Amino acid sequence: MGGISHTDRTRSLRLRRLGIDTYQEAVIYMHRDCYVCRSEGFEAQARVQVDYSNRSIIATLNVVTTDLLALDEVGLSEAAWRLLGAQEGDQVVLSHPAPVESLSHVRAKVYGKRLDMMAMKTIVYDIVVGRYSDVHLSAFITACSGDRLNHQEMVALTRAMIEVGERLDWGHTPVMDKHSVGGLPGNRTTLLVVPIIAACGLIIPKTSSRAITSPAGTADTMETLAPVNLDTAGIRRVVEREGGCIVWGGALRLSPADDILIRVERSLDLDSEGQLVASVLSKKAAAGSTHVVLDMPVGPTAKVRTSEAAKTLSNHLMEVGREVGLEVRVIFTDGSQPVGRRIGPALEARDVLSVLRGERDAPQDLRERALLLAGHILELSSHVPSGQGQKVAQEVLNSGRAWRKFQAICEAQGGMREPPCATHTYVVTAPYGGRIIGIDNRRLARIAKLAGAPDAPAAGLELHARLGSIIEKGQPLFTVHAETPGELAYALDYVKANPNIFQMEVSV
Amino acid sequence: MGGISHTDRTRSLRLRRLGIDTYQEAVIYMHRDCYVCRSEGFEAQARVQVDYSNRSIIATLNVVTTDLLALDEVGLSEAAWRLLGAQEGDQVVLSHPAPVESLSHVRAKVYGKRLDMMAMKTIVYDIVVGRYSDVHLSAFITACSGDRLNHQEMVALTRAMIEVGERLDWGHTPVMDKHSVGGLPGNRTTLLVVPIIAACGLIIPKTSSRAITSPAGTADTMETLAPVNLDTAGIRRVVEREGGCIVWGGALRLSPADDILIRVERSLDLDSEGQLVASVLSKKAAAGSTHVVLDMPVGPTAKVRTSEAAKTLSNHLMEVGREVGLEVRVIFTDGSQPVGRRIGPALEARDVLSVLRGERDAPQDLRERALLLAGHILELSSHVPSGQGQKVAQEVLNSGRAWRKFQAICEAQGGMREPPCATHTYVVTAPYGGRIIGIDNRRLARIAKLAGAPDAPAAGLELHARLGSIIEKGQPLFTVHAETPGELAYALDYVKANPNIFQMEVSV
Repeated sequence: MGGISHTDRTRSLRLRRLGIDTYQEAVIYMHRDCYVCRSEGFEAQARVQVDYSNRSIIATLNVVTTDLLALDEVGLSEAAWRLLGAQEGDQVVLSHPAPVESLSHVRAKVYGKRLDMMAMKTIVYDIVVGRYSDVHLSAFITACSGDRLNHQEMVALTRAMIEVGERLDWGHTPVMDKHSVGGLPGNRTTLLVVPIIAACGLIIPKTSSRAITSPAGTADTMETLAPVNLDTAGIRRVVEREGGCIVWGGALRLSPADDILIRVERSLDLDSEGQLVASVLSKKAAAGSTHVVLDMPVGPTAKVRTSEAAKTLSNHLMEVGREVGLEVRVIFTDGSQPVGRRIGPALEARDVLSVLRGERDAPQDLRERALLLAGHILELSSHVPSGQGQKVAQEVLNSGRAWRKFQAICEAQGGMREPPCATHTYVVTAPYGGRIIGIDNRRLARIAKLAGAPDAPAAGLELHARLGSIIEKGQPLFTVHAETPGELAYALDYVKANPNIFQMEVSV
Repeated sequence: MGGISHTDRTRSLRLRRLGIDTYQEAVIYMHRDCYVCRSEGFEAQARVQVDYSNRSIIATLNVVTTDLLALDEVGLSEAAWRLLGAQEGDQVVLSHPAPVESLSHVRAKVYGKRLDMMAMKTIVYDIVVGRYSDVHLSAFITACSGDRLNHQEMVALTRAMIEVGERLDWGHTPVMDKHSVGGLPGNRTTLLVVPIIAACGLIIPKTSSRAITSPAGTADTMETLAPVNLDTAGIRRVVEREGGCIVWGGALRLSPADDILIRVERSLDLDSEGQLVASVLSKKAAAGSTHVVLDMPVGPTAKVRTSEAAKTLSNHLMEVGREVGLEVRVIFTDGSQPVGRRIGPALEARDVLSVLRGERDAPQDLRERALLLAGHILELSSHVPSGQGQKVAQEVLNSGRAWRKFQAICEAQGGMREPPCATHTYVVTAPYGGRIIGIDNRRLARIAKLAGAPDAPAAGLELHARLGSIIEKGQPLFTVHAETPGELAYALDYVKANPNIFQMEVSV
């Protein structure tokens, strides 16, 4: 059956930079009439293997029917350029990719089969090297969502996600960490907990994510105060000097599969339990942490809605954590309303600063929550006796040591700065008076997102009333902040269409 | 909250045709620095609403960073041009789309909730008007796959898919139809059954699909013999004149959601039971059929692998059929090996022609299968007494009436033609002798697809041995046909890597 070699059926074209940004999907552009398209029988949406030097990627084909490309040229999306590492004018070799065999595991999972360690490893590896199209990623995420991953599968997915990326080693134990299981706007305790713990002499190299489905991730908020895009060497320098850092983990290749999956979860607005467990724990283990305190807000409109769901999820986190070498403690907290007064990257940074500086009007709920978590971390580290953690944390915050440590960390990360202010604001007032008996966190988060958060760092909203407040008709409920009139208008349209974000008990 | 109107936050740009074919996904191209991108805070992968005249579509944003587009220009993918119906140079208005509320139903389904009629209708409507990105479509398909749709949900999905499209009415009953539940290469009985039934004076307006995951759909095969892209008026003309037709259903907007979903299923290589039921029945009901015979091949490498699975699926088809006004009869057939001798559009057409012409070496299995199905259709119509159907069908075929009717149908559809021949072939021989005790249909189908089928109509393969044949070392097993050397080589690479497609019992 020999005689026809691999090279005979591959063809070479010259790379041209079209400058098309498709976000993360690798797309290849070829002219309909080019030799490769015709001889290989490629048509739009086909998957094409692109080889350059010793790199190889798989890209989705978009067929060009105009003179946008010459017949001997091929274009790549910006994501594909990044993956391939080639230069304009370089020659690439194109061919049909071999079938992505790990997709058969995804199909098996769709049909209810269990995925073992080997299956998860091949899936996660293929995802990281870019062999999955967005359609494939979406199917994998959906097939693993709901409660469709059992304990073994979560362990397998977590391990696979750790192993496929870099892993930091601090040569030291304990290495402390914390994480909030999102869903609660304004919950920026990390920016308080890290300086408290570091000020106590413990190591806490915190890598945070940007927002997935929320209006601000910790990295988005921190970025309004200091650079967060540090490389591994940069992080080591900061942590060696200050004991702690608050950086974006995305550039570090810690659990790189997570970054890819999260992007599609965002587009689906879907948070799956198994993927959440694997996402959180793989990042922590890859970051070299040994002890992790997880803040899990529970409430009707938080990510975790019932105490039953919280218990199930926390058991998964603790048990899977144990199997990947992490001691995990989960703290259930109140998830019935936003934490602090402000939602959005820069706005949340202002709440954090007021607590660190001990300002009189600082949001007490944010402060108390940070002290609670810091206390648990201190106790989990065994550096502070059980029952004493919160007291110690409070002393560190009140004395100004946490504030000084925070500034030192910001300086070490590249210099502290002032968070930006929005150019467009609008005050939404109460349509009638009464007592506030419910706040819809999800809709508040959506307003902040429609206003531009997190991409517009100054966008978001500022709350003027809280659960239990008694307010009068016309009194301000919240202020929407936006960086453009279009985004402000869009957020306000949503406010108008959703009058019951604040549930009021009207006294008669 | 007034003062900022909708029009203030929408912006207008001039359409430019870039000629980029993304297959079905609507993509919009805007310059990074254009006013709309900046003022609306759009970034790559954002969903953008495009309004033109009284049409409105949602497209996925690709951001252009070079001078491919001027700042006041906007490009669309070919799919988006088709959906929008605009001309180059026209002005479009761009805005943030309202949240696609039906996606909350998809998320609910991911979490195991049941979808009611209303939920299915809103999902299917949003799919048809282009509000779902490929990532959303993939999640919906995956969430409904496996056995995750119950009876009520299948009925709801089927009804929703019928109602969202056109529905033909023949003003006449019975209107006969047939369908093969795919998975068996070469199973082209439709091209035999339709002329037999029409020659008996019954109405059988057959709309067929192109291949989903197989190397040839019925429409692909028929297209090598006559035009199949007829509009509704064209079909009426053919059916009024000849009683039957064999056309591609895709252009008719009969269950248009099906065409969109099938494309993503293809990219996932996934066939879901509930979606299969809804796909088959919605097409039949929308085509105005009243009585349908379904051919369900069962075998270890067919689409339906066990008699248990066949029974479950056929119950779903009959029961859901009843609720949407279709009398459905399911015939289980042998699915252990390909039907006929050839696989691929033009090759299968040759098998069909040899049966119609009564040639001596015509594949008997294809002939027998067609007579079986035609017999059931005749009996289901009540035009022929029970037990007599197959005999009547045989007379019509043997007498040449079916062959004359087939030619008349081809002429009515636009003229009969000769199927094309492949320019590149390769004979694969047996590596050793023995008796053939198993044939892997799925791998044979994959070889035909790798050779270019169905997009290359002459591509596919021709079998020289069947189940039970005793063959000697070096004897031909099958010939691979391709239209290009690249595709031939690729198919042969796969053959080389998969030596056990024919399972042999070696006599010792």
